[in-house]
Amino acid sequence: MTETIMTPSSAVPKSAGNAALEQAAREQELVDRVVASFNACENPRLRQIMQSLSRHLHAFIRDVRLTEPEWDAAIRFLTDCGNITDEHRQEFILLSDVLGASMQTITVDNQAYKNATEATVFGPFHTEHAPHIPLGGDIAGKAPGMPCWVEGAITDTNGHPISGARIEVWQADDNGLYDVQYDDDRVTGRAWLQSDKDGKYYFWCLKPTPYPIPHDGPVGQLLRSVERSPYRASHLHFMVTAPGYRRLVTHIFVAGDPQLDAGDSVFGVKDSLITAFEDQDSTTPTPDGNNLHGHPWTRTRFNIVLAPEGI
Amino acid sequence: MTETIMTPSSAVPKSAGNAALEQAAREQELVDRVVASFNACENPRLRQIMQSLSRHLHAFIRDVRLTEPEWDAAIRFLTDCGNITDEHRQEFILLSDVLGASMQTITVDNQAYKNATEATVFGPFHTEHAPHIPLGGDIAGKAPGMPCWVEGAITDTNGHPISGARIEVWQADDNGLYDVQYDDDRVTGRAWLQSDKDGKYYFWCLKPTPYPIPHDGPVGQLLRSVERSPYRASHLHFMVTAPGYRRLVTHIFVAGDPQLDAGDSVFGVKDSLITAFEDQDSTTPTPDGNNLHGHPWTRTRFNIVLAPEGI
Repeated sequence: MTETIMTPSSAVPKSAGNAALEQAAREQELVDRVVASFNACENPRLRQIMQSLSRHLHAFIRDVRLTEPEWDAAIRFLTDCGNITDEHRQEFILLSDVLGASMQTITVDNQAYKNATEATVFGPFHTEHAPHIPLGGDIAGKAPGMPCWVEGAITDTNGHPISGARIEVWQADDNGLYDVQYDDDRVTGRAWLQSDKDGKYYFWCLKPTPYPIPHDGPVGQLLRSVERSPYRASHLHFMVTAPGYRRLVTHIFVAGDPQLDAGDSVFGVKDSLITAFEDQDSTTPTPDGNNLHGHPWTRTRFNIVLAPEGI
Repeated sequence: MTETIMTPSSAVPKSAGNAALEQAAREQELVDRVVASFNACENPRLRQIMQSLSRHLHAFIRDVRLTEPEWDAAIRFLTDCGNITDEHRQEFILLSDVLGASMQTITVDNQAYKNATEATVFGPFHTEHAPHIPLGGDIAGKAPGMPCWVEGAITDTNGHPISGARIEVWQADDNGLYDVQYDDDRVTGRAWLQSDKDGKYYFWCLKPTPYPIPHDGPVGQLLRSVERSPYRASHLHFMVTAPGYRRLVTHIFVAGDPQLDAGDSVFGVKDSLITAFEDQDSTTPTPDGNNLHGHPWTRTRFNIVLAPEGI
């Protein structure tokens, strides 16, 4: 008996009756060859990523039986994303966002741990060097919108208060714009503060309102083609850090916001992050005696639980 | 008994012992939400593609447990590809090529059929309006390289000759450059001709030599990072069309080319496309009496079998 080592391709006789088998063998042989091409990579993590990426990319092409005109369209789409991207606009992040890839990365990178607060997307609107405010201060900085009182406590997963945690907060104004989207250098709708000795924090901001992600480019065109809204559910961004704890990047969302049902365009919503906002008429006294000059206002509570570092 | 419909997320109790289950549920719930976001798409093919893309993209992120810094690096990489891409340079096609995605699309889109010649990558160097040459003409157009005689027959899968087939041929010169890569408007290394009444064809060209894909950009950097060569195996491009037959885009490769073992950077090689080139010394008469003025030359034979249209 003779024993021969056959590749998947040569193992399938090239006869008419076996066209489907031959086709499958050709496709699999190509996948194997692409995966093997990364075997010499000395960085094991890079090798793992490229080999997994190759397997999944090829599985996608094989699953949908991608046509050459569709491949052309994909190349044009990526090229258009490149053309619109500059230091002010990042279409590739938007693309990752609307495919849920950004949110899945956050989810994978922030493993569930006991009752720790869930993370959500970071977004492109955080800046370094936001102003510091004292407890009870106002992050709005004259941006337009309904005044909103936010209060809560920061604890570990056993309920022990975390004092001195750094709490960064940022948000869009009533026009759906962050300060960095204006043409001038104003700094509004962002600040940082610290929790007190009992882990408590409280500040004024604006009641969050829905706004669309930039949708005048190829990603906006894609959303229109698939009948999806570019709107994000109303939210307020938080980034909370404290020594010995895992950094938490999250939002709170507004219970009752119709956009929660319509769908957040970047898939950032978690049920655990939807909080009740209690709207107040203009005659209701504010918690800290702040004079709102006859404006109605709203309030919410958001208790934050940090996971230990290294989880 | 009460029956409730539970989502994967709410089905898993949020207790410490179930952190892994809760984590998996969070990830799957996100995939389900992203896939469902395309349900309203009225174009069924676009819906299928976007839902499959979402599933495979998320499976990749979950498989490798992608970190936020790695996601940042991926966004930077795509941004760099966009920056270098212009009307003369297409980094996204190069990226697709080196991941084997271009070749897999070709493979999927050209189903195996009996003994039909296999297709391979189209590449970015085809142009419209190549000159016509008669049978026995020279496609080289004064480009430098070893003269090469190519001959063969074009048949259907039953061996019947196909006369009047349009055969487009294009190739790089001895410097590894196609005419479109030069700064002037010269047209060299490309032409089209037609098979004769017996399906036969023959022409002069240059013996193919290996050359690298453009590797001074982010895709070249990626290849260096994973210890891969940017070189393509030596090849000659063919595109063959005839009424009633499937268009064939393919190459022939040179048996014995060391780059065949080192690996073709875009995965275009198929065993069935590797042909023997028989090198001749300068004293051997040419098949058509062409005077090569004392140059050595080479010859090869490539019989082409076309599948019926609509396969």
